[in-house]
Amino acid sequence: MSPTNLPGNATMTEHTMKAFDVDLQELQRLVVEMGGIAEQQIADAVDALNTRDVVLAQRVVSSDATLDALQRELEEKAVLTIARRQPMATDLREIIGALRVSNDLERIGDLAKNIAKRVVALGREFRYPTVMRGVESMSELVLAALKDVLDAFARRDTEQALRVWRGDEAIDAVNNSLFRELLTYMMEDPRNITFCTHLLFCAKNIERMGDHATNIAETVHYMVEGKTLSDERPKGDFTSTTTVPYPG
Amino acid sequence: MSPTNLPGNATMTEHTMKAFDVDLQELQRLVVEMGGIAEQQIADAVDALNTRDVVLAQRVVSSDATLDALQRELEEKAVLTIARRQPMATDLREIIGALRVSNDLERIGDLAKNIAKRVVALGREFRYPTVMRGVESMSELVLAALKDVLDAFARRDTEQALRVWRGDEAIDAVNNSLFRELLTYMMEDPRNITFCTHLLFCAKNIERMGDHATNIAETVHYMVEGKTLSDERPKGDFTSTTTVPYPG
Repeated sequence: MSPTNLPGNATMTEHTMKAFDVDLQELQRLVVEMGGIAEQQIADAVDALNTRDVVLAQRVVSSDATLDALQRELEEKAVLTIARRQPMATDLREIIGALRVSNDLERIGDLAKNIAKRVVALGREFRYPTVMRGVESMSELVLAALKDVLDAFARRDTEQALRVWRGDEAIDAVNNSLFRELLTYMMEDPRNITFCTHLLFCAKNIERMGDHATNIAETVHYMVEGKTLSDERPKGDFTSTTTVPYPG
Repeated sequence: MSPTNLPGNATMTEHTMKAFDVDLQELQRLVVEMGGIAEQQIADAVDALNTRDVVLAQRVVSSDATLDALQRELEEKAVLTIARRQPMATDLREIIGALRVSNDLERIGDLAKNIAKRVVALGREFRYPTVMRGVESMSELVLAALKDVLDAFARRDTEQALRVWRGDEAIDAVNNSLFRELLTYMMEDPRNITFCTHLLFCAKNIERMGDHATNIAETVHYMVEGKTLSDERPKGDFTSTTTVPYPG
């Protein structure tokens, strides 16, 4: 039997494929929407931190619910697509990829929200412009990494994904130097302790956003190549094992 | 047509159902295995922290890979089950539930690993037994919550899940008082700063493990009831907005 003997069936397959493509596009659209919100959340949270803008900080906190809702929506759509279309191999990886990326974007939103919450605690103090510049430059690196990796996701560009993956070391390096700097300021003057503690957590949150960008890079690689990135990512975050001795 | 006219078909359905049950059991088994490892990782990490046992801490760090691998395995199996069996409604929720729980367990493992890494930084200092007791009692609450919620998951017991969900406030309360205590010690003597900073992060990690236990409680509710827990969980973690003024 040649395929021409089965026009009904052929149309059916075409129809199924088309419906599947529509489903995939919808998942892709949701990832792009979530990515845009996550980027905005990072920028706003760090902006609110730099300018001690409590109103902007509150907005970041309340916007997080949008990201959570989109993630649940994507999860539901992804699972229904798998159940309805029974995709295999590459197609299946496309859906799992969207699921994983949405998970990372949702977690980036949580971290931005946590930074925003700390803006209230920090009050109107403006100490140590160099530390704030460090936080800002770290967040710029993370924002660039996120933009690049979402771009790599959209174009299924493993080369660009790998560049983001390797670039995370630079973010970790800024976090390490910030960690030491903040501990030193705390030792210099105990009145800095509350302020610096909150900044330590903010810096850690930004560093973890970078980790999520590298997770997304790994997902892009998995979607295209069908396997996990084998060699361990060069780790550069040593703050968990860093100690700063008191000079006194 | 009565069903008896379709023995072949009926057998087919029975066969499919049986295969689906086997798949579900396998997912369940993986969740239970991951849960056991996650519990052990928490206990070992806090134990290593209390006794400054670097060897045990290293073991926690290296065991984390097992949890990651199991999570990937569960994800793969879940997706293949959805694609093969096209489950609907309750059956589909069973699979999504297993996926979500495995995600939370994997993140609990990451947090335990981060605590273990800090054991090395803390060295052999034994300061402030009251703080260490606070960390210990918080981790006991979290371990109990995790055991209870995994039990609720295994028995699909929404009542027990809700109890865990509501109990998270107690964990947050311990974390709040620890946060204040640690900041005060840092202000009292700058030589405590590095030590207390690492303990702050450890306490935060334990508090976040508690959040994952409440996530699992929400998943149990979703699996049984088919809808998300509507009222927001009472939040008791105020450390993001806590300030401790320097008394001097």
